[in-house]
Amino acid sequence: MSLVSQTTGRLYGIGIGPGDPELLTIKALRILQASPVVAYPISDKQKPLARSIIAPYLTGNQIEVPMLFPFKLEESAQPYYDSAAEKLAEYLNGGQDVVVLCEGDPFFYGSFMYLYTRLSPQFHVEVVPGVSSIMASASALGAPLTYRNDVFMVLSSILSAEVLTEKLAVADAAVIIKLGKHFRKVYGVLKDLGLAERAKYIERATTSTQVIMPLEKVDPDTVPYFSLILIPSKWQP
Amino acid sequence: MSLVSQTTGRLYGIGIGPGDPELLTIKALRILQASPVVAYPISDKQKPLARSIIAPYLTGNQIEVPMLFPFKLEESAQPYYDSAAEKLAEYLNGGQDVVVLCEGDPFFYGSFMYLYTRLSPQFHVEVVPGVSSIMASASALGAPLTYRNDVFMVLSSILSAEVLTEKLAVADAAVIIKLGKHFRKVYGVLKDLGLAERAKYIERATTSTQVIMPLEKVDPDTVPYFSLILIPSKWQP
Repeated sequence: MSLVSQTTGRLYGIGIGPGDPELLTIKALRILQASPVVAYPISDKQKPLARSIIAPYLTGNQIEVPMLFPFKLEESAQPYYDSAAEKLAEYLNGGQDVVVLCEGDPFFYGSFMYLYTRLSPQFHVEVVPGVSSIMASASALGAPLTYRNDVFMVLSSILSAEVLTEKLAVADAAVIIKLGKHFRKVYGVLKDLGLAERAKYIERATTSTQVIMPLEKVDPDTVPYFSLILIPSKWQP
Repeated sequence: MSLVSQTTGRLYGIGIGPGDPELLTIKALRILQASPVVAYPISDKQKPLARSIIAPYLTGNQIEVPMLFPFKLEESAQPYYDSAAEKLAEYLNGGQDVVVLCEGDPFFYGSFMYLYTRLSPQFHVEVVPGVSSIMASASALGAPLTYRNDVFMVLSSILSAEVLTEKLAVADAAVIIKLGKHFRKVYGVLKDLGLAERAKYIERATTSTQVIMPLEKVDPDTVPYFSLILIPSKWQP
């Protein structure tokens, strides 16, 4: 006879890195393969990148929970997060561990935070950090990013040209993320600031469709969301 | 009969993450274990953290090359980097691959860049990104760092109170690294800016000696170099 205690499952938010399946950490892989339930974001516009990254590691016995987070998330996004959190809570209340796949790092410009704030008051949550696309891009570009006492900045390309100009003026090194349709504006700012020569462009770093090209070769009309411009430190060793 | 072609070895700079050996990536582990020569920085003041992180993974048949980089690296550091680069070049010219261990990520506030600039003109170099202590600290603190279009900044605590104040004023989220003896100054700046309540302190994130405590409990005279203050996004989902 055994006593079965009714306990809730654990929620894991695991960083799965920028795209190359080998850039998962050993810890993320262990937790992923031990978890009976695997949840990941899907969008109405993009292919489900997160699932494709970890596809080689799925055990074949896991329940998959796709969570629809529309590409354009504005204020109206809250119902989508509510719905996903409720779904995950069902598994957790049923005693099953749940792993949520997070591209890059879970707490760095991700969507996991919205689940974290909803579920961490009631459930045990563990977050496993991951390799950010920012560091992965620097490696892929062969571009040392920051030295010693550099002021480093991450900026979203959605910011206005005025704001980008003002912020970049006080940075020694910077990365401008999520370019998409904002490439033309960002490139203009960099040219005006004399940073275009130093800046480097990369799409989908470390994935099988990675693209590196000089900024002047980029077609502004075909720049994907998962692209960034890296401005390495002005200091050289 | 076989033709033996004389080829040079490859240099790998691998990010080994912030401290927990499980936060190595699968790729870093593979390259580490396949390499006949393993080089890592040692200092005159700190324990060799990098080697201790990967100690569980050493195969027992590898040549170890400690590289002395004094703790206080000023202009006079160049001869130390020259000397280390020359030593590694001997192995590479002899046809042996060399892996250089890099705490966190190789291109993000590391010392690998000094070897990279010296050796990449002559040898094939591959850089493997790693989990930064910044993301690892956010996970350990349970503190979502950046949302959506946040302006994120990394600052060195060595900067003056005036510069820190000016930079923090234009950030939505920030991390102040390498606190050491600068804690008192940084804490003063955060109090003046009204950020001390939101800020979180952590030492040696993810290592066996990790410490998390409220800022007001920190003894400014015993703060280690490997510590940071994280100021999570002002936005909450």
